[in-house]
Amino acid sequence: MHFNPSIVIKISGKFFDEDGSRNISSLRDVVKNLSSSFRVAIVSGGGSNARKYISMGRDLNLSESYLDLLGIWASRLNANLIAFALGDIAYPVVPDSLEDFIEKWSSGKVVVTGGFQPGQSTAAVAALVAEATNSSTLIVATNVDGVYDKDPKVYKDAVMLKELTINKLKEILENSQSVKAGTYELLDPMAMKIIQRSRIKVIVMNYRYISSLSDLIKDNKNIGSTVIPE
Amino acid sequence: MHFNPSIVIKISGKFFDEDGSRNISSLRDVVKNLSSSFRVAIVSGGGSNARKYISMGRDLNLSESYLDLLGIWASRLNANLIAFALGDIAYPVVPDSLEDFIEKWSSGKVVVTGGFQPGQSTAAVAALVAEATNSSTLIVATNVDGVYDKDPKVYKDAVMLKELTINKLKEILENSQSVKAGTYELLDPMAMKIIQRSRIKVIVMNYRYISSLSDLIKDNKNIGSTVIPE
Amino acid sequence: MHFNPSIVIKISGKFFDEDGSRNISSLRDVVKNLSSSFRVAIVSGGGSNARKYISMGRDLNLSESYLDLLGIWASRLNANLIAFALGDIAYPVVPDSLEDFIEKWSSGKVVVTGGFQPGQSTAAVAALVAEATNSSTLIVATNVDGVYDKDPKVYKDAVMLKELTINKLKEILENSQSVKAGTYELLDPMAMKIIQRSRIKVIVMNYRYISSLSDLIKDNKNIGSTVIPE
Amino acid sequence: MHFNPSIVIKISGKFFDEDGSRNISSLRDVVKNLSSSFRVAIVSGGGSNARKYISMGRDLNLSESYLDLLGIWASRLNANLIAFALGDIAYPVVPDSLEDFIEKWSSGKVVVTGGFQPGQSTAAVAALVAEATNSSTLIVATNVDGVYDKDPKVYKDAVMLKELTINKLKEILENSQSVKAGTYELLDPMAMKIIQRSRIKVIVMNYRYISSLSDLIKDNKNIGSTVIPE
Amino acid sequence: MHFNPSIVIKISGKFFDEDGSRNISSLRDVVKNLSSSFRVAIVSGGGSNARKYISMGRDLNLSESYLDLLGIWASRLNANLIAFALGDIAYPVVPDSLEDFIEKWSSGKVVVTGGFQPGQSTAAVAALVAEATNSSTLIVATNVDGVYDKDPKVYKDAVMLKELTINKLKEILENSQSVKAGTYELLDPMAMKIIQRSRIKVIVMNYRYISSLSDLIKDNKNIGSTVIPE
Amino acid sequence: MHFNPSIVIKISGKFFDEDGSRNISSLRDVVKNLSSSFRVAIVSGGGSNARKYISMGRDLNLSESYLDLLGIWASRLNANLIAFALGDIAYPVVPDSLEDFIEKWSSGKVVVTGGFQPGQSTAAVAALVAEATNSSTLIVATNVDGVYDKDPKVYKDAVMLKELTINKLKEILENSQSVKAGTYELLDPMAMKIIQRSRIKVIVMNYRYISSLSDLIKDNKNIGSTVIPE
Ligand SMILES: Nc1ncnc2c1ncn2[C@@H]1O[C@H](COP(=O)(O)OP(=O)(O)OP(=O)(O)O)[C@@H](O)[C@H]1O
Ligand SMILES: Nc1ncnc2c1ncn2[C@@H]1O[C@H](COP(=O)(O)OP(=O)(O)OP(=O)(O)O)[C@@H](O)[C@H]1O
Ligand SMILES: Nc1ncnc2c1ncn2[C@@H]1O[C@H](COP(=O)(O)OP(=O)(O)OP(=O)(O)O)[C@@H](O)[C@H]1O
Ligand SMILES: Nc1ncnc2c1ncn2[C@@H]1O[C@H](COP(=O)(O)OP(=O)(O)OP(=O)(O)O)[C@@H](O)[C@H]1O
Ligand SMILES: Nc1ncnc2c1ncn2[C@@H]1O[C@H](COP(=O)(O)OP(=O)(O)OP(=O)(O)O)[C@@H](O)[C@H]1O
Ligand SMILES: [Co+2]
Ligand SMILES: [Co+2]
Ligand SMILES: [Co+2]
Ligand SMILES: [Co+2]
Ligand SMILES: [Co+2]
Ligand SMILES: [Co+2]
Ligand SMILES: [Mg+2]
Ligand SMILES: [Mg+2]
Repeated sequence: MHFNPSIVIKISGKFFDEDGSRNISSLRDVVKNLSSSFRVAIVSGGGSNARKYISMGRDLNLSESYLDLLGIWASRLNANLIAFALGDIAYPVVPDSLEDFIEKWSSGKVVVTGGFQPGQSTAAVAALVAEATNSSTLIVATNVDGVYDKDPKVYKDAVMLKELTINKLKEILENSQSVKAGTYELLDPMAMKIIQRSRIKVIVMNYRYISSLSDLIKDNKNIGSTVIPE
Repeated sequence: MHFNPSIVIKISGKFFDEDGSRNISSLRDVVKNLSSSFRVAIVSGGGSNARKYISMGRDLNLSESYLDLLGIWASRLNANLIAFALGDIAYPVVPDSLEDFIEKWSSGKVVVTGGFQPGQSTAAVAALVAEATNSSTLIVATNVDGVYDKDPKVYKDAVMLKELTINKLKEILENSQSVKAGTYELLDPMAMKIIQRSRIKVIVMNYRYISSLSDLIKDNKNIGSTVIPE
Repeated sequence: MHFNPSIVIKISGKFFDEDGSRNISSLRDVVKNLSSSFRVAIVSGGGSNARKYISMGRDLNLSESYLDLLGIWASRLNANLIAFALGDIAYPVVPDSLEDFIEKWSSGKVVVTGGFQPGQSTAAVAALVAEATNSSTLIVATNVDGVYDKDPKVYKDAVMLKELTINKLKEILENSQSVKAGTYELLDPMAMKIIQRSRIKVIVMNYRYISSLSDLIKDNKNIGSTVIPE
Repeated sequence: MHFNPSIVIKISGKFFDEDGSRNISSLRDVVKNLSSSFRVAIVSGGGSNARKYISMGRDLNLSESYLDLLGIWASRLNANLIAFALGDIAYPVVPDSLEDFIEKWSSGKVVVTGGFQPGQSTAAVAALVAEATNSSTLIVATNVDGVYDKDPKVYKDAVMLKELTINKLKEILENSQSVKAGTYELLDPMAMKIIQRSRIKVIVMNYRYISSLSDLIKDNKNIGSTVIPE
Repeated sequence: MHFNPSIVIKISGKFFDEDGSRNISSLRDVVKNLSSSFRVAIVSGGGSNARKYISMGRDLNLSESYLDLLGIWASRLNANLIAFALGDIAYPVVPDSLEDFIEKWSSGKVVVTGGFQPGQSTAAVAALVAEATNSSTLIVATNVDGVYDKDPKVYKDAVMLKELTINKLKEILENSQSVKAGTYELLDPMAMKIIQRSRIKVIVMNYRYISSLSDLIKDNKNIGSTVIPE
Repeated sequence: MHFNPSIVIKISGKFFDEDGSRNISSLRDVVKNLSSSFRVAIVSGGGSNARKYISMGRDLNLSESYLDLLGIWASRLNANLIAFALGDIAYPVVPDSLEDFIEKWSSGKVVVTGGFQPGQSTAAVAALVAEATNSSTLIVATNVDGVYDKDPKVYKDAVMLKELTINKLKEILENSQSVKAGTYELLDPMAMKIIQRSRIKVIVMNYRYISSLSDLIKDNKNIGSTVIPE
């Protein structure tokens, strides 16, 4: 028996907010293309829908756990849409924990997940999934072109880094981390811890270039930022 | 052992689209009040969120089953929000079929559901739930004041009916029924069939008056339209 | 990856009542034969066993929901027998809802189901399954030779129709439909709605000719009645 | 917190074969009466329905495991009927293993089960359930009046024993045991082992006297045979 | 309806390694006593058994995810033992995720859990559980008398602190944290993040004094170290 | 479709107690080798860990059912370790009943189980699994070289039997059987009953020679004792 190498793609929840169906259509093409030579896992964020429900929940005085759960359920709705769009090559049910993911992953299909647990971002989910699938690379497709030396949405003069170490990334993100439900930035501490302990390479890229993903993976095309495990 | 009578409240998905948290807050007050003398089941529609995901799915050429499933998942997100808002008096997990509902209902808690199955509206879910809980009354809280002799959103001169038979209702709605995912009006044929065979009284009311619900139920306050089983 | 086209076979519950094992043995041969070029889903009715338990339940004053559930559990017993008889080519557990079916269907095996939900017949289940599997044809194997212009068990002079539109079928069946548990005739309104919205061709045939099924499907052999989606 | 003592009632599958609804109606009255002072678990056999499906399965060359599973599914259909008949005092879902039983039992409701596993009778299930619920007594309601010195269906001169030890019972049953699916007599070795190791008193009685069960339990009324743990 | 306040007790896995049954017997007495005025959740660590299986897994070259899962399964074995020992007041099944915990918690019983997910300690589980149950206090029962200014197992001159802020604790533990499976110390970053965002008071105490726990909680008896949310 | 023949390997719980990782490493090599020509199921015992938890449970006055459940959970921990060690060729979740096993087995992967139910040994589980998979042979790998004419751990002069009938084995083991949790010897009555009714050949061997297993199976190498079905 021969098994293809695995790869994990983390899709920003913002992906669904505007031009959602066109974005997903591009993702579908890329994943179909990749799935002949890779086993693919996809993790979807919650986006504006997550934020909307978390905000209603906050008005209703729910505690942080339940706010995070609303964000998780919103991300699962996105994950369902991707899974249904992929059709027969994808597992048609979204797992709700890492153990559940592992069981569904054993089917040999593409598995699409949303959030798993309060207290962690979907980036942490992606890192856990990358570790459990022995993936050497985790793609983070988000709404900026890569990792900058400071938050590019705040600082006009932020400079993008083609390559950086995980420790450098930790240092950069340290200040921007918030612990409130729905507000984790890029990668939260859990994500970073997993990436580090299992030495997973992270590529941060803009989801606008999602259709170049198979070039990036197969031909090492120069897109986004690469975070080196050490 | 003594068991309180049961009542089912079907909440329009539009309830969440505008002033969502204020609407839910009113619902929470009413349900807490009711739950001392009634066992309460709540069924939530999908609203604009359902329509948004169904529309993306349609762009992606999904079949009707999967479009309905997207609407169902959107309604479950709404149902989760209500369940979490109700706190300890509600069962904290949303059932995904009538059998699952029956099991969770046996806990004695308020149970909140979204959709169950492609091919039927959440109004059909509400009718099934009313039948399985032996409820004599089903409240349908929607965005019009009651049942009109024709669609009030289309015809300015539509006249609201304080009381009508189920057969009259069938006749009125017959023309407006569509079979496409996410487009069922008020009550679909499945809902009507269940209501009829188990002789369940339906009250259609505007969700703007949701805070008067306990008056309506306990004191027979004159709100909305009453559909008589026969 | 290449996927075979899908086909759905709805087996009457009466199939098990007399010569059950011989009938199933024929079905097994046909399905084994078909399964090299088709993905096959099978939906089993409840038969006399369903009627027996529903009748006991009615004596005990159960509500319609629970009577339907007894019929559903009886149909699942039949479904189990078929699944076990098919051995390794079939999924060994009977799904209990469409979502559950979809998950088990992703295994690539033949999936056998009984009923899903109160308020609908196993013919509705078959239609839902045909839609979710993108099947273009649904075979209904029952105890009459096809669709007649009126009920052939009641009217001696009923004439069988080799081909008819779904609207013609609706018109014919309209009067014979009952809403009581266990009494749906041939195709209920839910089945018809699904067949219509997804334009699924239905072939109604006598299960006595089940061993000719692969001829029918592969060589278009002239058996039973064909219901044209429009 | 105070917990009522537990009692387990094992109902023969033959109970459903003739006068089924009248028998269940009597059982319902007795259990409602008992449930104010006892926690009640009910285990149902498979009866003629089990034998019918096992016989079809045998014609189809299924192995013993799958034949037993058919009998188990038939007994679950019976268990569902009892559970639905009991209404709100019963847990509405039939457990499928002892672990599942233990979870549902923690609800505080009457729990009704059928078979659990191939290779053992529903009497073994009843013994396992009695042990897990710390019941001191297991009632076996069957179609003979009690334990006889030899099989009363075979030997006209069999003598009923008002009281006997478990070892005496073992000796009597030893010869009549068969290992084929669906043919276990009264109590199989697994049942006997559990009863012995946990010193559970067994009362074997005719289900025709089921309406006297609460007299038997509460007032020690003299019915059937009592098997003393040692 | 009135609900008692909730409290969470995190039990070190070392609790089971020596005098296990005596320790659990004390815990049982305390929890029975507490459960009249508190709702109690218990989280159990993995102890030497976790370390043994993780070490075997490491010899076999398993990745960190699977090593953590072995530790989780070891902690669930401990959790089962506690749950069984508590009998009817406890939920008899150990949940495997926070969502599962929330469902079981709604039963009103004591719920006992082990680990939930790779990448986090059972102390993080305890913090998540405290947040989801709106507990204002989390008890951490471990093998040292409280929080010291440095690791008391390493430094003879470590000084115990009766009271400290969460930020002070973070500072103290920062250096001792490891990311390898099975090696988290006292509280890991996830635990600290949850405690902080939901302002949960943590009391670290020696499990040798577990029988004084109800005095501690009810009468504010002076045991261990108190970590103030801010 | 062609299916490989199935084989079941029962691994003593003692396998994990000493040199655990080396033993598992050998087992992994053998199973990888076998899995090209056989479908393999593995059943793992509980070993010293089971005995430790059962002994704590007994100190705490748990009933036999719960003691057996502790042993079952200990055996599942062992089963998890084997499943994780096998990686992609194994199903990553341990089933908890025969029905659950059958579902997971349909995946086509190696399935690893621990115990299923109180009242029976893991050898009974292995026999049930062998029957459900239509295996003609069951390998029992334990800590003695085969079946002796009396217990070799007690009697120095015990003589090993290269071949014996199942009835001879019954006779030998009859006296050594105990009904207490965790104390079943070699094969319990349930195991023997299943083996007999489905005519399964049993080979008892020392797990020290586990690396010769594929020689034994493929080349009929002369190891251990063979128990002939009749
Ligand atoms: N140094 C940095 N480099 C790049 N982006 C940064 C940096 N610091 C902060 N960010 C912010 O991180 C954001 C991306 O992370 P964010 O978590 O908001 O989105 P996401 O995870 O892709 O989507 P979602 O959480 O909705 O699924 C960017 O929009 C950017 O503003
Ligand atoms: N005769 C009628 N009387 C009242 N409303 C009618 C009638 N005919 C059509 N309608 C339409 O039914 C609508 C309410 O049903 P609809 O299914 O759209 O909402 P809902 O079920 O409350 O919400 P959702 O489906 O989003 O959960 C009204 O807005 C109205 O336009
Ligand atoms: N126009 C018609 N043409 C053919 N059959 C009809 C027609 N009208 C009514 N029927 C009845 O439909 C019956 C078949 O449907 P029915 O639902 O009873 O069986 P089934 O679905 O095959 O089995 P089951 O419901 O037991 O699974 C026929 O026996 C016939 O009497
Ligand atoms: N500053 C400190 N104060 C107290 N304990 C400390 C400190 N720093 C490190 N420790 C260590 O933390 C240990 C307790 O945490 P640890 O995670 O080992 O045990 P646990 O969580 O109780 O058990 P388990 O992880 O096995 O369930 C102590 O034995 C002590 O050596
Ligand atoms: N006649 C016999 N021949 C062989 N072994 C016997 C015989 N009688 C008793 N035994 C005992 O059976 C033991 C093996 O069975 P046992 O159930 O203890 O281990 P296991 O099933 O391999 O492991 P575990 O139950 O821990 O999973 C041997 O160690 C031996 O002492
Ligand atoms: Co994010
Ligand atoms: Co609607
Ligand atoms: Co029918
Ligand atoms: Co029997
Ligand atoms: Co720890
Ligand atoms: Co053993
Ligand atoms: Mg589920
Ligand atoms: Mg289960």
